[in-house]
Amino acid sequence: MTPLLDTIQSPADLRLLSPHQLPQLADELRQFLLESVAKTGGHLSSNLGTIELTIALHYVFNTPEDRLVWDVGHQTYAHKVLTGRREGMARLRMYQGISGFPKRTESIYDTFGVGHSSTSISAALGMAVAARNKGEERRVAAIIGDGAMSAGQAFEALNNGGTLDANLLVILNDNDMSISPPVGALNKYLARLLSGRTFNAARRAGGKVLSVMPSMREFASRVEEHVKGMISPGTLFEELGFNYIGPINGHDLEALIPTLQNLRRLQGPQFLHVITQKGQGYKLAETDPVLYHGVSKFDTTCGIKPAKSSSKLTYTQVFSDWLCDQAASDSRLMGITPAMREGSGLLRFSQEFPDRYFDVGIAEQHALTFAAGLACEGMKPVVAIYSTFLQRAYDQLIHDIALQNLPIVFAIDRGGLVGADGATHNGAFDLSYLTCIPNMVVMTPSDEDECRKMLSTAFAIDGPVAVRYPRGSGSGVPIQPDLSTLAIGKGEVKRQGKRTALLAFGSMLTPALAAGDLLDATVVNMRFVKPIDHELIHSLALSHDLLVSIEENTIIGGAGAEVSRILEESGLRVPHLRLGLPDHFIDQGDSAALLSKIGLDPAGIASSVCEKRAANS
Amino acid sequence: MTPLLDTIQSPADLRLLSPHQLPQLADELRQFLLESVAKTGGHLSSNLGTIELTIALHYVFNTPEDRLVWDVGHQTYAHKVLTGRREGMARLRMYQGISGFPKRTESIYDTFGVGHSSTSISAALGMAVAARNKGEERRVAAIIGDGAMSAGQAFEALNNGGTLDANLLVILNDNDMSISPPVGALNKYLARLLSGRTFNAARRAGGKVLSVMPSMREFASRVEEHVKGMISPGTLFEELGFNYIGPINGHDLEALIPTLQNLRRLQGPQFLHVITQKGQGYKLAETDPVLYHGVSKFDTTCGIKPAKSSSKLTYTQVFSDWLCDQAASDSRLMGITPAMREGSGLLRFSQEFPDRYFDVGIAEQHALTFAAGLACEGMKPVVAIYSTFLQRAYDQLIHDIALQNLPIVFAIDRGGLVGADGATHNGAFDLSYLTCIPNMVVMTPSDEDECRKMLSTAFAIDGPVAVRYPRGSGSGVPIQPDLSTLAIGKGEVKRQGKRTALLAFGSMLTPALAAGDLLDATVVNMRFVKPIDHELIHSLALSHDLLVSIEENTIIGGAGAEVSRILEESGLRVPHLRLGLPDHFIDQGDSAALLSKIGLDPAGIASSVCEKRAANS
Repeated sequence: MTPLLDTIQSPADLRLLSPHQLPQLADELRQFLLESVAKTGGHLSSNLGTIELTIALHYVFNTPEDRLVWDVGHQTYAHKVLTGRREGMARLRMYQGISGFPKRTESIYDTFGVGHSSTSISAALGMAVAARNKGEERRVAAIIGDGAMSAGQAFEALNNGGTLDANLLVILNDNDMSISPPVGALNKYLARLLSGRTFNAARRAGGKVLSVMPSMREFASRVEEHVKGMISPGTLFEELGFNYIGPINGHDLEALIPTLQNLRRLQGPQFLHVITQKGQGYKLAETDPVLYHGVSKFDTTCGIKPAKSSSKLTYTQVFSDWLCDQAASDSRLMGITPAMREGSGLLRFSQEFPDRYFDVGIAEQHALTFAAGLACEGMKPVVAIYSTFLQRAYDQLIHDIALQNLPIVFAIDRGGLVGADGATHNGAFDLSYLTCIPNMVVMTPSDEDECRKMLSTAFAIDGPVAVRYPRGSGSGVPIQPDLSTLAIGKGEVKRQGKRTALLAFGSMLTPALAAGDLLDATVVNMRFVKPIDHELIHSLALSHDLLVSIEENTIIGGAGAEVSRILEESGLRVPHLRLGLPDHFIDQGDSAALLSKIGLDPAGIASSVCEKRAANS
Repeated sequence: MTPLLDTIQSPADLRLLSPHQLPQLADELRQFLLESVAKTGGHLSSNLGTIELTIALHYVFNTPEDRLVWDVGHQTYAHKVLTGRREGMARLRMYQGISGFPKRTESIYDTFGVGHSSTSISAALGMAVAARNKGEERRVAAIIGDGAMSAGQAFEALNNGGTLDANLLVILNDNDMSISPPVGALNKYLARLLSGRTFNAARRAGGKVLSVMPSMREFASRVEEHVKGMISPGTLFEELGFNYIGPINGHDLEALIPTLQNLRRLQGPQFLHVITQKGQGYKLAETDPVLYHGVSKFDTTCGIKPAKSSSKLTYTQVFSDWLCDQAASDSRLMGITPAMREGSGLLRFSQEFPDRYFDVGIAEQHALTFAAGLACEGMKPVVAIYSTFLQRAYDQLIHDIALQNLPIVFAIDRGGLVGADGATHNGAFDLSYLTCIPNMVVMTPSDEDECRKMLSTAFAIDGPVAVRYPRGSGSGVPIQPDLSTLAIGKGEVKRQGKRTALLAFGSMLTPALAAGDLLDATVVNMRFVKPIDHELIHSLALSHDLLVSIEENTIIGGAGAEVSRILEESGLRVPHLRLGLPDHFIDQGDSAALLSKIGLDPAGIASSVCEKRAANS
């Protein structure tokens, strides 16, 4: 029963409520979101933590004329519900349903598409400068978490914004968390700001001083007094040119609303420090916000139960086990993650090898150059990173690692389509952007056992190596527990057929084998994108009249482009059909269904081959 | 006459000198460097500014056992001279001569290869952690400028380093400069640290207190006292977990040496703030450090004279003029540079359109997302950036710009080989890493007039567009002063020949035309890498028996790979020869000579074509 929420079709409806109704709205919204996410899956802890803040922002700011820019975007479900997408929540993160993140094409209230972290201040600054230059009075607020604030880009944006004469409000949503527990000096600094009487004084100030709504000038001078005196100053942010206010309790609407009302009137760069609790209002999530960060369907009364142990390991688990085994056998191994301990499978490693485990924060650029420094001193770093986040450190990969040919293993998770997270998280480009870099070795495992062998192979190579594996589990093949390696640059024929040869890379081997049966085609597990198996391609070209490369990566650049290059160099004029992801961004949905839709399932592959054969004949 | 310098073959020799001899050594070294750089060209202001600091570091630290990690590296000439490369300075930045930057393969004293900014703290932290884990006593110092400190990666590294138990010394070489004059809040903060009595007190402290060399404990407590009391605290760095000391005068060896000696003994993360002057000791460079940042040969007595006005404009100047003309005709145009106002040609724009000019600091990631925010509000941002630095913002290009299909123009300078700066600065990969991104349009001008037309075309397109042009000047063709545009995705036949068609991209049109004369081949100016001209490729494939793509980009991915893809899709089995940069990094040298060496001059192209024809027949 959500009688108040039922009346809200848009923020304009929200702004008709009186302030004393808002706590009830927050309760109803919390109840609705908990039940909705328990049915669909999605992000939970972060959304429960920002309900009051979201209500206060839409209550005070004149959205959509004023711009709210959410960082990362996995805290925007309340925002979606309040901006006309309550019904859409039933198809959250599903094919053609609403996105799990803000998206400009989905709503006029979604001012900036997002998914990766730490972009909000930059984007909001751009919007604020545009308003300034156009002489528009609109306000712009960026809402960013303390984890996201640790990324270099956020610092770059503060450094720029603190000197520009633009009306930018940065709201630090401080819940002492990124997805993994927090790391880094900035986080410790924030913790000191909150220690002892400071936060309590701020809470009182929020309740007493600010609720009487002083005039702007009075407010500013009081803030000044608080900042410089009674309340611990947010010196770091003040030094960067922002007017720092806070910290205030982000679940206290009586503090939030007058503070935001006053801030909305101030000129220049403003910084509001808000304290929230992830999972707020749902005891189980409050207690274990990491477990309830991203959830599958669950029963809200019983909470999340441990999944029945599946016989199939995910690729992430395969990596996790290999990492610990390899570390046990070689003390030079160092494991590095940019703030994705759980997602990348480093939890066990962090417990068993704490001195060799480095969560560097949301800091992909630093992660890679830090690894380079380790490698210069004879260590063997393993960087665990999602394909889409490695894009953040592309220059460091080229300039610091490949150029110096340093031995670093990249365990690249989430290569290919990722499903519910959609376009921002698909690993659609890595084979293209990696293959063009000199000195790189690039491997794509087709099953779990091969993934382990490729990781061992990578670790033995004296240069930069990427092993790129998909999200989720493979076919469940048995995994040899040793650390045996593979021949570098060698593929293997998996099925001997006629006329057509299917050259499968990584995850595409499984559908290729099924398509091979349909077509009686030869099927090859290529294993290496770089160096690619010249000899095998030669011999296939001599014995077949059509080669078909299949990869879960854009068809521009990447594995197929390497097959083309080898064929051209060989002078063998056998036709080549390049199958892969199309040249457009792919939204969320079930990965298998999406792959079918773009013709990367057995029937689609067979049909593309037949079409090509018909065209050739 | 450099009698003292003549005795120094390595830092071990330096450490045999008594402290009172060091000022003379600094004078000799300064004299030598000024004369040497005046003969070879190279970076001057930055090197003159770090002579005393370099001497002090090698005097105090036990190099190469201790590790010095220089940021950017354009301040390491003194380091090169003191580490056995004095004779090499005569071939600085020349083919097979010594690099203008530190390079691991060049010297054991060059601990980390560099060229791009802001990597030093990350790399040094990796080295310090490796030493810790191996139980080695070696010390590691990163030397970073105030400009480089504004980049996000430096912040990421401080944020990580401040919490790790590693013996890392960060030396902030504060000369109030990046290459362009400084911007951003951090710089203003540093200026406040230096204001008034603070710096003077520090100088006295350096002279009086530190020269008596107190015991470590005494030193630490005095520093503590200074930091918390008399001397303005470097709060920002302290809050990030570093022990902040300074500022001290970086040209005063009597202050530098005891301070470094004490710091070398302290445990944990240390931060030393050193003030230097770019161009120190050479009046002309002190007065205009920007002019003397990177110099060609010049007469040290007369100084740099304005170059005789050449009839040939550089591509940078073509961009500069276009930007101002386009801005005059469209008030939505916003010009953005990440700290390369002069290099990228935005000086005139910054003077004529100050409200629409944004130097965001060394902050490529922020630059792109800031542009995205502007574009969301209807502005038309133009981001001027070097090819190699765009690698720093690859994720922002994909995730913030291309995914949202925002209309932003990328004026990509220094595409292809750059000459003296070498491998770190070559724009060797952009066509590959851009072409695989959906929604991108990628153009390569073959002359100056076409460059201007492409920029106008880019500005008219409602999506992300890159115009990628080379370093230096073109052939000197007349430039039409209007803002006329080109047909999107259309190339043009420049020479009608027989059998062979040369498909030239951008800078390669000129040698292709000459090779076309040698071979009587058809020569095509392709103009667009994406969308590539399908129809033209079809018709060429039907009327020729060999297509040859030629690009100044790696042959993996990029333009040639797109030609292959179109040929494959068309089903026309004409042989295709892909010419471009080889799959390895290319060191410094004269660009034209390097291009000849790798076969991208007329003779090389002709010879590759003949070889291919012979292999095919």
